[in-house]
Amino acid sequence: MDYYRYKIYIEYNGMKFHGWQSQKDIVTVQDTIEKAIFSLTGEKIILEGAGRTDKGVHAIGQVAHFDLSKKWSLKKLLGGLNFYLHDINATIVDVKEANFNFHARFSAKYRVYEYYILNRSAPPALHKHKVWHVPKKLNIKAMQTAAKFFIGHNDLSAFRAADCQSKNPFKTIDKCMIHRNENIIIIRIKARSFLHNQVRIMAGTLKLIGEEKRDPSYIQCLLENRSRIYAGPTAPPYGLYLVHVEY
Amino acid sequence: MDYYRYKIYIEYNGMKFHGWQSQKDIVTVQDTIEKAIFSLTGEKIILEGAGRTDKGVHAIGQVAHFDLSKKWSLKKLLGGLNFYLHDINATIVDVKEANFNFHARFSAKYRVYEYYILNRSAPPALHKHKVWHVPKKLNIKAMQTAAKFFIGHNDLSAFRAADCQSKNPFKTIDKCMIHRNENIIIIRIKARSFLHNQVRIMAGTLKLIGEEKRDPSYIQCLLENRSRIYAGPTAPPYGLYLVHVEY
Repeated sequence: MDYYRYKIYIEYNGMKFHGWQSQKDIVTVQDTIEKAIFSLTGEKIILEGAGRTDKGVHAIGQVAHFDLSKKWSLKKLLGGLNFYLHDINATIVDVKEANFNFHARFSAKYRVYEYYILNRSAPPALHKHKVWHVPKKLNIKAMQTAAKFFIGHNDLSAFRAADCQSKNPFKTIDKCMIHRNENIIIIRIKARSFLHNQVRIMAGTLKLIGEEKRDPSYIQCLLENRSRIYAGPTAPPYGLYLVHVEY
Repeated sequence: MDYYRYKIYIEYNGMKFHGWQSQKDIVTVQDTIEKAIFSLTGEKIILEGAGRTDKGVHAIGQVAHFDLSKKWSLKKLLGGLNFYLHDINATIVDVKEANFNFHARFSAKYRVYEYYILNRSAPPALHKHKVWHVPKKLNIKAMQTAAKFFIGHNDLSAFRAADCQSKNPFKTIDKCMIHRNENIIIIRIKARSFLHNQVRIMAGTLKLIGEEKRDPSYIQCLLENRSRIYAGPTAPPYGLYLVHVEY
């Protein structure tokens, strides 16, 4: 029997789901899209995602794959899935055919996350739960200096959640760039893979540095001390976006 | 008795209000902010806004003024108002003192509106009710050519709602610029004042031209024919933003 593999690009509002990963009795992105695929094709599939985002974390460019026994026109698959996802806060941005050696999670070379901070006195009205509101003016130059310490292969034990299941706390961060666009500060981080809550703890720590409560070189100390309790608080999930997966 | 005039800059999510203007028994932006001012200061004031946006229309830079009998620290006024507006989808971005000859509505020299079109097959998941979703790829060059016909002093009868109460259909449009940022098309229009639904009918007509259902010069015909029935449909309110008021 022939199978056909499809690669999909997904955008979703993380505040409307209990994270990516399938769970019993609660609404997750994976379950929701698996259901839409079943409604359209009649096939029960398992959707493999590139990044298992937590509750509240958004995606602009999540990637996933699944197999169908029937060959579909890509246009019909895209339109059909979005028909069933109508008003469900997740949308299929694109569909492509993929080879059988393609795996959304294991073939990923890089994942790019962005963390959005709204840095002004007034809380957001239009972008509520889409940005982290930090009222006090942040020192962006200090944050940019600090960001450079993250680049490279490091023990990131200070930047992982207590429940992180990774056996190895070493990760390579390829890029960590910070820029300001009016009163929005964007932290962009590129790496092959991440520890649990890593970007949110990095964002929480960079905020401390932006507030001038710590020097930029404090990042270096944390990389050496490897102790979570000295890093900043975990920034809220709704400032975080999975923007791109590179294969 | 002394009075003090304050000028405020307001951001709001238009989908959460029945427009700007005060109305009995329904929630409007004006009423909501007047209530917040009363809660903070104990003073019943009338808030004068620069633009009376319709239900569903957003604002990033709405401006309004009001008078208080007590002199307030601007920082306390800003913080206090946002405290009472907490979770109400409107936020005060800034507060300034104003002279008594300043009037948010009558002193305005220019108003700038932007209309956002999401131009891709997939509907928005993250920006639902913040952009107009147009699936078919639009010809942006044709739209840009068409936009130039709007510049100048013209009879805009073809671009006004049936219920528009303005006695004079002539308006001067100073700028009408269109640019694309990935799959977002932004129409930016600057004028001293606007007719009812003018920007939304302009956006709906420019979309027809982007779809190549009409030539760019069709705008010229509409300006000469002055007949609403030949213009495009009124684009939905939630793509429209009042971004800036110039004094």
